[in-house]
Amino acid sequence: MSSYGRYHSQSYAPSAPQEPSYPPSSSGYSSFPPGTPQDVIRSFQMVDRDGSGFIDEYELQQALSSAFHRFNLRTIRLLMFLFKHPHQPLRIGPNEFAALWNCLGHWRGIFERYDKDRSRKIDALELRDALYGIGYAVPGSVLQLLLSKYGDGSGRRVELGFDSFVECGMIIKGLTDKFKEKDRGYSGSATLKYDDFMSMVIPFLVSYE
Amino acid sequence: MSSYGRYHSQSYAPSAPQEPSYPPSSSGYSSFPPGTPQDVIRSFQMVDRDGSGFIDEYELQQALSSAFHRFNLRTIRLLMFLFKHPHQPLRIGPNEFAALWNCLGHWRGIFERYDKDRSRKIDALELRDALYGIGYAVPGSVLQLLLSKYGDGSGRRVELGFDSFVECGMIIKGLTDKFKEKDRGYSGSATLKYDDFMSMVIPFLVSYE
Repeated sequence: MSSYGRYHSQSYAPSAPQEPSYPPSSSGYSSFPPGTPQDVIRSFQMVDRDGSGFIDEYELQQALSSAFHRFNLRTIRLLMFLFKHPHQPLRIGPNEFAALWNCLGHWRGIFERYDKDRSRKIDALELRDALYGIGYAVPGSVLQLLLSKYGDGSGRRVELGFDSFVECGMIIKGLTDKFKEKDRGYSGSATLKYDDFMSMVIPFLVSYE
Repeated sequence: MSSYGRYHSQSYAPSAPQEPSYPPSSSGYSSFPPGTPQDVIRSFQMVDRDGSGFIDEYELQQALSSAFHRFNLRTIRLLMFLFKHPHQPLRIGPNEFAALWNCLGHWRGIFERYDKDRSRKIDALELRDALYGIGYAVPGSVLQLLLSKYGDGSGRRVELGFDSFVECGMIIKGLTDKFKEKDRGYSGSATLKYDDFMSMVIPFLVSYE
């Protein structure tokens, strides 16, 4: 059993959609999935002022700020990159927006559940527990390495606000899921081709700012 | 032969040091390697105002700005993360500074050689040629994916200035070298453990800003 082996007993973990619903409807304006709550639709339409059916990163930042958090643009770009259609420019339509909203709702629930001292911050142990709770048993050394990228460089103990928590969570979950696709037997090892390895990893790297 | 197989015939490609020289000398101030040019030592000492023997990210940005470029802090943090001692806080001593300076000199030479139209920008084809020139035959699809992260989201053709070129180069070279360590036979495939995969990738991810 691999160290991330708890995963396969779970299915509700928040995630970027594997196959975004495309292409848009014949009107050119892809519609929301059936059952999408009105507040989600309203949040999208309020920022899509030109009615193009797509929103850019600044509009997404604005759309999410009332219901969730004013995410920094780096997190916004990571979210867009993970949720947008792979062959489309960096923009989000109604389907992707609904999926992203749903995903952020899950992450917020997790954040609140594991922020046990109600500090609005998640520390290393709480992060480990939170990931374990959604089925990802991530080794402490891996989490420490990741958290060291969020510190101020002094080596002091790192705590994550909701913004960085979502970013960390999406990175760990996303990379683990990609790895798992190549490790169907949950052995903890996978054989990867060089091209696949690079293509797996690059979406999680830097975005232009 | 793997697609990155040209690598092993080369040995001069710019790189983060595999084994930074540590610990510091008994005086507490680790010294520069023998033969370090005076301008490198001077650049370090000018920004290390408290004489601690270590510089932080802002000091590094300043130290590099006269000789190379005023790198944005994201690139500076990636460079620090790749060059610093793995178990030290985010700071750079003389040995790492000399190695980093040397590495940036190589990248500048490559940038100038492959910026054939002297536009001070490298486009996708020039980037491919530049990487091929130092021994990395990176598939076009991988480079396109990476470059798409540097665009403004519109899908327009991306060109990299020196700053982003160094970042891209360090990412491609760094990840490829890590992969290569696990693919000693240059087969183009490697078997990775989950923990190793995550630890390979995380240093190239986002840094706190």
